[in-house]
Amino acid sequence: MADTHTLILLRHGESEWNAKNLFTGWVDVPLNDKGEREAVRGAELIREAGLLPDVLHTSLLRRAIATAQLALDGIDRHWIPVRRTWRLNERHYGALQGKDKKATLAEFGEEQFMKWRRSYDTPPPPIAADDPYSQDADPRYAVLPPDARPRTECLKDVLERMLPYWYDGIVPDLRRGDTVLVTAHGNSLRALVKHLDDMDEQTIVGLNIPTGIPLVYELDDQMRPVTKGGRYLDPDAAAEAIKAVANQGR
Amino acid sequence: MADTHTLILLRHGESEWNAKNLFTGWVDVPLNDKGEREAVRGAELIREAGLLPDVLHTSLLRRAIATAQLALDGIDRHWIPVRRTWRLNERHYGALQGKDKKATLAEFGEEQFMKWRRSYDTPPPPIAADDPYSQDADPRYAVLPPDARPRTECLKDVLERMLPYWYDGIVPDLRRGDTVLVTAHGNSLRALVKHLDDMDEQTIVGLNIPTGIPLVYELDDQMRPVTKGGRYLDPDAAAEAIKAVANQGR
Repeated sequence: MADTHTLILLRHGESEWNAKNLFTGWVDVPLNDKGEREAVRGAELIREAGLLPDVLHTSLLRRAIATAQLALDGIDRHWIPVRRTWRLNERHYGALQGKDKKATLAEFGEEQFMKWRRSYDTPPPPIAADDPYSQDADPRYAVLPPDARPRTECLKDVLERMLPYWYDGIVPDLRRGDTVLVTAHGNSLRALVKHLDDMDEQTIVGLNIPTGIPLVYELDDQMRPVTKGGRYLDPDAAAEAIKAVANQGR
Repeated sequence: MADTHTLILLRHGESEWNAKNLFTGWVDVPLNDKGEREAVRGAELIREAGLLPDVLHTSLLRRAIATAQLALDGIDRHWIPVRRTWRLNERHYGALQGKDKKATLAEFGEEQFMKWRRSYDTPPPPIAADDPYSQDADPRYAVLPPDARPRTECLKDVLERMLPYWYDGIVPDLRRGDTVLVTAHGNSLRALVKHLDDMDEQTIVGLNIPTGIPLVYELDDQMRPVTKGGRYLDPDAAAEAIKAVANQGR
């Protein structure tokens, strides 16, 4: 076992709805070609860094699952154990799921729009059961009782439902000495980064995580980063992408 | 829980080395385009039969892993739990790994060739540690002590190393009421079928399992088939493919 524990975070690349500028949330949209190329590039960066993931954790959503498959295939680690959980899913976007971001901005105005997108604790309106983008009939969530199943989420909600999996699903692998790859989403990864870096609510609201660029944390025995913020495997590309994400939907 | 337990066996489609007529064994060769199409067709058959796998078991080899990913993606079940094990790997072909089948037939003659390919208990010569197609340096088998790692296998050996996983890895899922998908290889699936159908050694030696056509077993509480031999989801295509496999390498 190494002196530190290695955690690799990878945000999935562009999906068909990212490209169309729609709110996605729990809607299970596939990667587009650009997203697939981003995953392959992520694999190259992991290989160049000499990192060898021993175990993979993903959400239940196709865009994270496919990103992981492409990334692992690219580094000949397609055979490692994998576990999937709804607790790593993207933020549930409530009634906004399937809506156009620009139209939503126009309809509700900048202040409300930014509150839904970026405030720490204001969720969008809950999704209706008969909304075509509701997950009420989705078999992958059938094991969850209705009271545990989100109908909308703010980032605070994501953090609260993600943390139990961090402690019970991921930390034991890290303690065993495994290099852990987590392939997930903008907001589930922001929630994890907020926890790891012990960020306040203002700071996390301003933080973007770029797609397809592995973010590596070395953690001490208290499961806290040796270096706050970790390190991106392509820091220049990360800096550029962070700017672009900040302007999304404007 | 249903009255019977549903087990779906799926042999991976054509790989780059199948097409080149080389002995593959534990060498980790990818599917070719035809093999990918076979996996997609397998998904269609599973969907048309109305089957919903709850859990997936695969080998550690890329061609089985990719087949499962394509098949599950095609039926919107990409999110189900997956477990991988070397015990579902293809038969280790020993010193024949990487060798051309026709050249081997010409070099050793029909009798020896057929004995290695089809006898129940005659393994090919063991692979040398310095053979380019040895798995001695392969990290996915690093957890196995040398005495547990095959250097060659006959079908009998495959059955013996596969069965512990059948009892401890797969049967508990079936008992829980899960519909189980096993995506594996010609010989690991023949070994399982020999066990399920309680076949004698002569019969299994003559049995071929076609690629890409799901074979469904309904099992009783003793984990024995309600109908011996199970049922292929496309019986006509299966019958045709079985003939073709029997002529392979001639």
